[in-house]
Amino acid sequence: MTSTKPIDLSNMAATEPMAQAIARSRENSENGCEPFGAVIVKDSKIIATASNQVTQNNDPSAHAEIMAIRKACQVLDTTDLSGCELYTSCEPCPMCIGAIYWSSLDRIYYGCSKEDAAEVGFSDQFIYEELAKKRGDRRLPMHQKMRDEAFKVLKKRQQSKTDNKAKNE
Amino acid sequence: MTSTKPIDLSNMAATEPMAQAIARSRENSENGCEPFGAVIVKDSKIIATASNQVTQNNDPSAHAEIMAIRKACQVLDTTDLSGCELYTSCEPCPMCIGAIYWSSLDRIYYGCSKEDAAEVGFSDQFIYEELAKKRGDRRLPMHQKMRDEAFKVLKKRQQSKTDNKAKNE
Repeated sequence: MTSTKPIDLSNMAATEPMAQAIARSRENSENGCEPFGAVIVKDSKIIATASNQVTQNNDPSAHAEIMAIRKACQVLDTTDLSGCELYTSCEPCPMCIGAIYWSSLDRIYYGCSKEDAAEVGFSDQFIYEELAKKRGDRRLPMHQKMRDEAFKVLKKRQQSKTDNKAKNE
Repeated sequence: MTSTKPIDLSNMAATEPMAQAIARSRENSENGCEPFGAVIVKDSKIIATASNQVTQNNDPSAHAEIMAIRKACQVLDTTDLSGCELYTSCEPCPMCIGAIYWSSLDRIYYGCSKEDAAEVGFSDQFIYEELAKKRGDRRLPMHQKMRDEAFKVLKKRQQSKTDNKAKNE
């Protein structure tokens, strides 16, 4: 998952991807939208730029980092962004860090820290705190229901994968 | 894919939303896609149903819960799902829990637990563990860059909010 191989930015000013991420955050803010931007780089090329689209799209998941991940995956026709780096104007929230792990990005550069963001009213600390709690202790009520029926689907899927693997060996 | 016409649950069995979430997980699995489904209910009506679309859409963020949240927000023309409940065939991963908090959902019903999912090869435990670590200790390298320039945008945004508030008082 982690690449230690540095991406060669020799044809690009070293600050260029972050400058673009910040430019997108500024532009979005000036349009009255959320002040966050992100850029994804692969092989010294910017392959996706995005700004937070939560209010424009009525999509609570449309943080700049997730929008950039969606675009980069379209560009590369894959869900696997290993070999890519994310530049984001602000440290990603837990939702975006989850998406970053699922997409196997190599490395993150961030501008503001989450402490900076909290200082000006954009705190995500409560999500870290909630995720660290046991299910039953969260402020979000979570109840289990119809577990056996739901689990049958997952078990059947696993069995089918095992059968296919056996067939191909 | 999207159920835009609300389904009235007042005459339905209390198990109906979870049964639908599980049906979507089964259907997706039988089509060779990820075996997860989700449903959102408001005022005893199903307003959105979804399955995991990661492989179909090349979108690592397209878990069933996030797809259902995006659809419900379109149906209700809002980013605020307070008053709504999510039924999901499997306990949401940290990315989806983040989206659930950002969208202010009231309550979650889940079928399989994350321990069930891990037992058949769908573990998300590493994301919980990574989120609990300090930035510098994660396996995902995170570096700060151009902080002051990025922070200027957030501070300007806060100032503009404060100015607007003062004007309206």
